[in-house]
Amino acid sequence: MSNLQHFTLGSSKPLFPDDGILRLYSMRFCPYAHRVHLVLDAKNVPHHDIYINLKEKPEWFREVSSSGKVPALELVREPGHPVLIESLIICDYLDEKYPEVPLYPKDALKKAQDQILIERFGQFIMTFYRILLNPNPADLVNDDIFAGLAIYEEELKQRGTEFFGGTAPGMLDYMIWPWCERFAALKYDRGLELDPERFVTLLKWRDLMLQDRAVKIFHLDGETHAKYMKSRRDGNPDYNML
Amino acid sequence: MSNLQHFTLGSSKPLFPDDGILRLYSMRFCPYAHRVHLVLDAKNVPHHDIYINLKEKPEWFREVSSSGKVPALELVREPGHPVLIESLIICDYLDEKYPEVPLYPKDALKKAQDQILIERFGQFIMTFYRILLNPNPADLVNDDIFAGLAIYEEELKQRGTEFFGGTAPGMLDYMIWPWCERFAALKYDRGLELDPERFVTLLKWRDLMLQDRAVKIFHLDGETHAKYMKSRRDGNPDYNML
Repeated sequence: MSNLQHFTLGSSKPLFPDDGILRLYSMRFCPYAHRVHLVLDAKNVPHHDIYINLKEKPEWFREVSSSGKVPALELVREPGHPVLIESLIICDYLDEKYPEVPLYPKDALKKAQDQILIERFGQFIMTFYRILLNPNPADLVNDDIFAGLAIYEEELKQRGTEFFGGTAPGMLDYMIWPWCERFAALKYDRGLELDPERFVTLLKWRDLMLQDRAVKIFHLDGETHAKYMKSRRDGNPDYNML
Repeated sequence: MSNLQHFTLGSSKPLFPDDGILRLYSMRFCPYAHRVHLVLDAKNVPHHDIYINLKEKPEWFREVSSSGKVPALELVREPGHPVLIESLIICDYLDEKYPEVPLYPKDALKKAQDQILIERFGQFIMTFYRILLNPNPADLVNDDIFAGLAIYEEELKQRGTEFFGGTAPGMLDYMIWPWCERFAALKYDRGLELDPERFVTLLKWRDLMLQDRAVKIFHLDGETHAKYMKSRRDGNPDYNML
């Protein structure tokens, strides 16, 4: 069950079949929710997607997610239908619960090192939004955003593998991907692109990621992301534009 | 090896015996570092403590922790002596690496629910510092800080156990403890105490935590914390006051 219309204030709660399938409350353009879509799809875990208008949330959503946040994952097979929030916690839970396609390195140290790189990506995310949401692109110093990505360029070069996860995308690949996909939006109204010489490894990685099955399922191109971001910048996010 | 003097700008790097023992870079009053001390002590993992003056960091510390942050844990038995940062990542790593005293619930869902409560405690932490660092206590509305703790009062009451972790402190207990210990400082220069009727469960928990071996090892009383916080508020944190 997936409907790209976002539920809004005044809408009735959708009726779900009693099928034991996970329910993911999401917003189509939310990069944090994107993380959970990627992990569910990478692990082939069936799920219903329920999209929420974050500006005018349906009244019934408060009962689902006490924090009012997406992503929120409702575990309908567990007693009391508990709901998990926080993208990283949800993804870690899914990795433990559905271990057939493991996304973290088995080694505790390597896992911790990947988690540090996921955490550190938060700095890049902040810079990214400062650039994307600023109405006056001329104000911006863009060096920061490239410096933030250079850490990952260097790291992947050192690992010498196609993906951070090795021969297939792992948790680190998927956790940073939503913003890497959205980076393509910066070309459209910020005129920013990655320098092919400085980011030779990361650009190769991007092309490989774009061929990954889970990435493809939820992928949107840069122009579409730019269009949504503009609507958000204008104070009227167009959730239902697809 | 533990010396309560904090290494400062211009100090030489301490020489360590080649004993394979973990090296924890810390600051005696840092609540995030406190988390790692608690987990190491709860698990009986031997470690050297190296205290760092965070205002005037020794030059050599940059080579240890590229982010310049504490806590930082140097894994001297691993090739290249890798260093982990971020308190939660370090504690999760320790829980995986030293499973004899497990701190998380075995069940993936219960673990994720505890992690959400750890994450959510971040809001309380922000309110706590707003109160503690504000030079004018009269400006403050203190309701927020009690509302933030009421979530944990309610949760523990519902669990019906002595600790969040059951019959012994678990990861959630230890991850929130550093700020709960420091709450006692608010009595001294903010005149704030927990209402014994509203927080009956949490106050019982606090008394039990104070009897825990790992908590005792690193414990400081409210007056000492208040004294340090005052020095910090005055712009001159007195790292070596103990």
